[in-house]
Amino acid sequence: MTTRMFEKFTTLTLISVLVVSVFAGCSSSTESGAEAAKEKKQQPIIVQGPMPIEAEEFAGKLDDVKEEKSGSFVFYKGTLDGYPVIVTKTGKGMENTAAATAVAIEKYDPIAIINQGTSGGHDPELHVFDIVLGERTVNLGSLKTPNKEKGEGIHPTEWIPMDLMASEGSAGEDPDAENIRYFEGDKDLLAAAHAVKDTYTKGKIVNGTIGSADVWNNEVDRINWFHKNFGSSVEEMEGAAGAQIAKAYDVPFLGIRVLSNNKVNDGEYNPDTAEANQEYVYEVVKQYISMTTEK
Amino acid sequence: MTTRMFEKFTTLTLISVLVVSVFAGCSSSTESGAEAAKEKKQQPIIVQGPMPIEAEEFAGKLDDVKEEKSGSFVFYKGTLDGYPVIVTKTGKGMENTAAATAVAIEKYDPIAIINQGTSGGHDPELHVFDIVLGERTVNLGSLKTPNKEKGEGIHPTEWIPMDLMASEGSAGEDPDAENIRYFEGDKDLLAAAHAVKDTYTKGKIVNGTIGSADVWNNEVDRINWFHKNFGSSVEEMEGAAGAQIAKAYDVPFLGIRVLSNNKVNDGEYNPDTAEANQEYVYEVVKQYISMTTEK
Repeated sequence: MTTRMFEKFTTLTLISVLVVSVFAGCSSSTESGAEAAKEKKQQPIIVQGPMPIEAEEFAGKLDDVKEEKSGSFVFYKGTLDGYPVIVTKTGKGMENTAAATAVAIEKYDPIAIINQGTSGGHDPELHVFDIVLGERTVNLGSLKTPNKEKGEGIHPTEWIPMDLMASEGSAGEDPDAENIRYFEGDKDLLAAAHAVKDTYTKGKIVNGTIGSADVWNNEVDRINWFHKNFGSSVEEMEGAAGAQIAKAYDVPFLGIRVLSNNKVNDGEYNPDTAEANQEYVYEVVKQYISMTTEK
Repeated sequence: MTTRMFEKFTTLTLISVLVVSVFAGCSSSTESGAEAAKEKKQQPIIVQGPMPIEAEEFAGKLDDVKEEKSGSFVFYKGTLDGYPVIVTKTGKGMENTAAATAVAIEKYDPIAIINQGTSGGHDPELHVFDIVLGERTVNLGSLKTPNKEKGEGIHPTEWIPMDLMASEGSAGEDPDAENIRYFEGDKDLLAAAHAVKDTYTKGKIVNGTIGSADVWNNEVDRINWFHKNFGSSVEEMEGAAGAQIAKAYDVPFLGIRVLSNNKVNDGEYNPDTAEANQEYVYEVVKQYISMTTEK
């Protein structure tokens, strides 16, 4: 090798090393963030479950699972039929679910979100192991109480709904906010859920209204009041929070809730319903993937 | 220029162009994301306000403001005394606040979060324009109702608190969850708030308990029930949601709430309180910045 050849060789090597190392640094630093996900063709499907028994069964069914944590949320990133699916253990309640939904959207740019788990029945026609597809979800905890002076008591059947998304003004002062806000379930997710209905044999599957709040109602009169006034089929503590945030980001959303108990027809609590629901939701996700990849 | 010199020159130019362009691509794609913020020395202070009148006044006081949107949330990114401050218009309610808090933490890696705005009084000693520093915040909407059969009525004074963070099991079935969960205000933020107390002349400033829920309570008996059983000084619809998510990510948090009305002592609603609170919080933030940069 002559001196000149050696110079050229080292220069080219230098270019290669620089370029390769810079590109490598680049790709690893942009792997997180919505930008990177957007560049990929396959946006993941998010499956949310509040409690370990509502999420871990599903996470165990994914291939090549990697666990990522963020705050108190756990994201199990894997694939199903080769398509990216991220199971999220959100924790319980409206606040955790709203935050976990926003984080999932910001970090993973999902094509769709399914919020699933157990619920308490409001509809006397529904029994433990029946499943409600959330054609609508509604926040049952967003309420305004009437003006009552000291000694005039507390009158929960006179409380009215409060729509926190009606306007940017004061919800207490704004008469436009005195309405029920329903979040609609995504039509394609509903279609996927209906297409695999027959795979579920432990109960019936119906469209319905999923009501959510940080409240565990055990008073049958109050449950009946919600059923009559809000049309709630079941209650749980997460769905409407996920639906509200998904809507803010325009991400398709569906709640899928199995009855784990039903106070209005003496349906006893059965924790096995959580697993049964995940088995059904697994079929829904498979169906949605096949519909999505066919497009 | 000899041929060899020209070869060397073009080779070096090639290296420069490649490296510069690749680095440029790199830096623009990593500007968003917590990674970038972590590299900077100055983590921003987040100031949250639910409604336009609770955020825009403060945003107008920042220098070099850039607006960023994410879902329904607006982030006004600017500086105050040369230090980065991000005012967030979160929207109303627990769900929006929880989500906006998580997004802010993920995107901007804040050093601290202040949630501020108006509130309704629960404490008869407090009057319109008085300000409560949230030594504690508590979710007033997280409740469990006792078992009552059909026809046995609804008994809101028998409802018990439900702590959604007590365990990962079913909150309805878990006796450990039958407790009030208080979120503590950050000590340094409280110290900053106390240090500038005298700048506020429109009312008094006290440590207290900020209660939050998606509920607008106008029944004095219910307000008194919360004041007695939860120790609430005021109620609003956001603080405890922000506090819960900030705690999950271990980010210092404080609620600062002015009374815009007080049902228990006939304090009439005054929307000007929103601006007064922001003027005070501006002083708190300046103080916190001077304490932070001195360290």
